[in-house]
Amino acid sequence: MPKVEHIGIAVKALSTSVSLFEKLLNTACYKTESVESEHVNTDFLQKGETKIELLESSDPDGGIARFIAHKGEGIHHIAFEVRDIQAEMNRLQQKGLQLLNTVPKKGADNKLVCFLHPAGTNSVLVELCQSIAPL
Amino acid sequence: MPKVEHIGIAVKALSTSVSLFEKLLNTACYKTESVESEHVNTDFLQKGETKIELLESSDPDGGIARFIAHKGEGIHHIAFEVRDIQAEMNRLQQKGLQLLNTVPKKGADNKLVCFLHPAGTNSVLVELCQSIAPL
Repeated sequence: MPKVEHIGIAVKALSTSVSLFEKLLNTACYKTESVESEHVNTDFLQKGETKIELLESSDPDGGIARFIAHKGEGIHHIAFEVRDIQAEMNRLQQKGLQLLNTVPKKGADNKLVCFLHPAGTNSVLVELCQSIAPL
Repeated sequence: MPKVEHIGIAVKALSTSVSLFEKLLNTACYKTESVESEHVNTDFLQKGETKIELLESSDPDGGIARFIAHKGEGIHHIAFEVRDIQAEMNRLQQKGLQLLNTVPKKGADNKLVCFLHPAGTNSVLVELCQSIAPL
């Protein structure tokens, strides 16, 4: 788990939020991607070794839409890079942490991902992500 | 603004949360610090170039205690490293972003810090921090 790979931020509309974060971070969005399986559209900005991932729901019943309805816009999750996601999932389960998916799934940005149950992590939604291309 | 300097996480009790995050991140807490002016006790863990800063209130009326009472435990803020905090504060004000303190103040970890008003940043509490020692 070498670094914070990205920080996910739930926003109502990429069209307004991306210009805000471009001003804030003084850098341009370098990629836009839709992940149909997760019902999200994403914009990426880079700061050092970490990405800021803006997340807009593409479905009124999607996870990001429900998050915003419940808690409002804001920080949604932290993703840590891992080199071997299955090994890291096994390590965390052995330590008593609960995973939200038992098999790695395809996420944005060409990653295999797994989320941890926030009830076991001080209400922080934690994602593990492994590049599908070798690191 | 070269990198994500730290991610602040509000917790009820460092005594239980630090061992959880040590397990999660597979690394030991390397520093504990109290910041009396902010009414917080902090534990630091490092992942790559970014710190995870666990924040426990040292005062039942402190900002972290109020955050937890209102929203529960969880991610509290993102801090971006800046080389010249006053210049960055000026730049952001010129872009229309609102600062919570108009003069840099002393934060944890030997930093000068400034927070941005979350109403202007999609409800994300953003901190700017400059090392007091030269970077």
